[in-house]
Amino acid sequence: MLAFGIGLGTKNQKQEWLEVFYPKPVWQPSSALADIVRQQFAVSTNTSVELDADQLESLAEQFAAAGEQELSDATKALIETKQPRVINILLEDSPSRSTPEVYLKLQLISHRLIKPHGINLDGIFGLLPNVAWTSEGAIDLEELPARQLAARVAGRVLEVDCVDKFPKMTNYVVPKGVRIAHTARVRLGAYVGEGTTIMHEGFVNFNAGSEGKSMIEGRISAGVMVGEGSDLGGGCSTMGTLSGGGNIIISVGKNSLIGANAGVGIPLGDRCKVESGLYITAGTKVAVLDDQSQAVETVKARELAGQHDLVFRRNSVNGRVEAVTNKSAVQLNEALHANN
Amino acid sequence: MLAFGIGLGTKNQKQEWLEVFYPKPVWQPSSALADIVRQQFAVSTNTSVELDADQLESLAEQFAAAGEQELSDATKALIETKQPRVINILLEDSPSRSTPEVYLKLQLISHRLIKPHGINLDGIFGLLPNVAWTSEGAIDLEELPARQLAARVAGRVLEVDCVDKFPKMTNYVVPKGVRIAHTARVRLGAYVGEGTTIMHEGFVNFNAGSEGKSMIEGRISAGVMVGEGSDLGGGCSTMGTLSGGGNIIISVGKNSLIGANAGVGIPLGDRCKVESGLYITAGTKVAVLDDQSQAVETVKARELAGQHDLVFRRNSVNGRVEAVTNKSAVQLNEALHANN
Amino acid sequence: MLAFGIGLGTKNQKQEWLEVFYPKPVWQPSSALADIVRQQFAVSTNTSVELDADQLESLAEQFAAAGEQELSDATKALIETKQPRVINILLEDSPSRSTPEVYLKLQLISHRLIKPHGINLDGIFGLLPNVAWTSEGAIDLEELPARQLAARVAGRVLEVDCVDKFPKMTNYVVPKGVRIAHTARVRLGAYVGEGTTIMHEGFVNFNAGSEGKSMIEGRISAGVMVGEGSDLGGGCSTMGTLSGGGNIIISVGKNSLIGANAGVGIPLGDRCKVESGLYITAGTKVAVLDDQSQAVETVKARELAGQHDLVFRRNSVNGRVEAVTNKSAVQLNEALHANN
Repeated sequence: MLAFGIGLGTKNQKQEWLEVFYPKPVWQPSSALADIVRQQFAVSTNTSVELDADQLESLAEQFAAAGEQELSDATKALIETKQPRVINILLEDSPSRSTPEVYLKLQLISHRLIKPHGINLDGIFGLLPNVAWTSEGAIDLEELPARQLAARVAGRVLEVDCVDKFPKMTNYVVPKGVRIAHTARVRLGAYVGEGTTIMHEGFVNFNAGSEGKSMIEGRISAGVMVGEGSDLGGGCSTMGTLSGGGNIIISVGKNSLIGANAGVGIPLGDRCKVESGLYITAGTKVAVLDDQSQAVETVKARELAGQHDLVFRRNSVNGRVEAVTNKSAVQLNEALHANN
Repeated sequence: MLAFGIGLGTKNQKQEWLEVFYPKPVWQPSSALADIVRQQFAVSTNTSVELDADQLESLAEQFAAAGEQELSDATKALIETKQPRVINILLEDSPSRSTPEVYLKLQLISHRLIKPHGINLDGIFGLLPNVAWTSEGAIDLEELPARQLAARVAGRVLEVDCVDKFPKMTNYVVPKGVRIAHTARVRLGAYVGEGTTIMHEGFVNFNAGSEGKSMIEGRISAGVMVGEGSDLGGGCSTMGTLSGGGNIIISVGKNSLIGANAGVGIPLGDRCKVESGLYITAGTKVAVLDDQSQAVETVKARELAGQHDLVFRRNSVNGRVEAVTNKSAVQLNEALHANN
Repeated sequence: MLAFGIGLGTKNQKQEWLEVFYPKPVWQPSSALADIVRQQFAVSTNTSVELDADQLESLAEQFAAAGEQELSDATKALIETKQPRVINILLEDSPSRSTPEVYLKLQLISHRLIKPHGINLDGIFGLLPNVAWTSEGAIDLEELPARQLAARVAGRVLEVDCVDKFPKMTNYVVPKGVRIAHTARVRLGAYVGEGTTIMHEGFVNFNAGSEGKSMIEGRISAGVMVGEGSDLGGGCSTMGTLSGGGNIIISVGKNSLIGANAGVGIPLGDRCKVESGLYITAGTKVAVLDDQSQAVETVKARELAGQHDLVFRRNSVNGRVEAVTNKSAVQLNEALHANN
């Protein structure tokens, strides 16, 4: 068994799931836990099952008996609610089949139980309904106008914070050791490493994130991972596979810095630096300078993808984009042609 | 009759309107509807009238009799509320005279009943009070400190989300077929076309918006329209008439792309592209290259306003801003001098 | 006595302060007020004391007797609350010692009683707990998961808006004469001058802000002050001492303009302009042009720090960064070498 989650959620008036909250998703359950789940639900493939109070009671007791007290408590808490409850069981890493399954996968990532690109997210857009995320919870868009009017008539404002297929992460989980100054900019399915600070201008899409201590004041697009110790300056941009990056998966290595208002359309290696305000796309022609500041060659930026210890800048005297290295011309030439 | 709206709103302690919510604004009412309104309110110019329960009852009955059930229901819903109710009637397209009138105009745009620049918005800033938009509704700024203290004493937080003349659009209407990942960045009076996705970094001011399917991850300034199929990259900027664009009304044509962190201070035509990170102001000198990549002429960007099929980039070898076309030098010369 | 504040706040289950709200902080109290406070609390250094109803009653009476009716009312309002109450007394301008002290200092700035850099903020990061700022108030991060689950079980969503050491300013105070279109981007400890408008893309960190009428659509980093009449364009960046600016404290003079998506890593003087999209770092080589547009010299931008009447642009024909002045070559040479 890959994973399971027991949660509660919201349905629309047609009894379709809008979202599911799993307080304690379980990744790679112990065989004891997996046996408890398998015994109660005879499933042969990835499956969602709605739960009633008796089933929850039984699961909670068995989890406690297996020494999983926290999981037992979280399960027991669901017995009394009027919200619909569900268990989602993942047996295999395959394209998703239901809304509860997608919500489980996204929460597994945001709980840091798996990393971005660590689980099959094919087809999730079709399974995630577009939802109004409001001060009164998730609301189906067809039902929204009546709810808004009813609230106003009652003297309340129904605050509509987001109209999207993805809710914000922090309403589901705030992983340990992070600061997120403005949570509306981190989608469920983001992976925010322990020690990461995301400032107000930072953004993290789903299936993307940061490792360990990072300072994120720029945008981490879908699919992009940022390494430990790196710094994304205010308003900087990383191209995502969904937003202009094409087939290259962008990443940023360790201890790298992308300056404010800069951007990258190539993967960066470790200890790299992109000057504030400079956007490097895959097709940008870059003059590569050796450790004597002599231009050895001009290449497209994609040739420099993933190389370490590069400083990218635009020469402010002649407008040329340059990559400065700490290597001699000979070493540099070899490095540049290593991929050819 | 141009339009009318029946709504409820919020007043301050001085009995001045702070805002009005119109659940079903009506643009170009049928003659049946217009007659019902004219008969009940003998008006000769754009007018706001406060409504009591009897008037609402009567209107609701007549709307139902005229076959306008939805409008009747929305009107009937207002009978029981303790909030002040109002009808605003627009007979002519003239400068606004009251706060309820401005709110009606902004909601007509956001309901997509009229397009940006489709109605007279002169003088609206003077009629829109600066309001604290909070978790307890619209609050007059003079009354705010006492409300904040009272809430804290009662153990609540009075969340102050916005202090502005414009509230966010989605608390008034979410038009059909849109995603707006972060609603705080779309002002009432925005026009969000069906099929448009506005990501977290997107922004739409009032009297501005997008047609049809667009991906908006950048900022649409006041007055700017973006055509069907266009893509505004993350953090890109469009100059508004209120913010640096001067007298030129900026627009973006169909199927155009403004790259991430780029910007435009000229109207773009169809199928244009501005490279990520490049800001084109009206005064930017641009070398125009023909289909052989030969520079035909250098012109100020404003000369290229509205032309189709241009790709703007900064040459990364020599720092020159270039517009690449798909035309031969001869055709190009003609096109460039067509406006002279 | 430098200052005092009487407020109420939130503690976690361990009885540690998470935050304190001071409705009427007092800077440089009159000797009458200072005597009342000193008599009730015999303190010899900066001190926080928790208050009970009797103490509040007594303070409120004495404040009223001293003619300080507003302060008396705000104090009296705290008698009935179930929240913990505190007085913080600042006798000297020294590093902070407690969470209530830091909250008082930040609120003194945001109430515009003192300016950024006007009070000792050393060591505040260690005294500010990282807090979940939610629709149910400030919550300790260890207590958050249980609160989230309890809310969901009860059919509510516990909205987690911010996970940070700093709350947003407007939940504590909205100073007079400002517009802040999106309050999540202005931290407590910001100084927002009367007449300032902060648009959705604007941002103000703590110990930073704007004087008088300014239009802020860009980011004011920690420690940065923007002068009267200046305009920060959409998405523009100012380097902070905490974020890349090193030891230079960045500032922007009066009536200056930083264009959209531009940025500065040097202090700007009065009436300066940075072209949209251009990032000037301290190390940028800048060709200084005289009033005949002739290049007089090329200097690093840091040499131009604080100079008035400069227009920074990137020449779009040759990619060179230039500073245009309104001075002749002779005057200019003298000015450039004045600091040598």
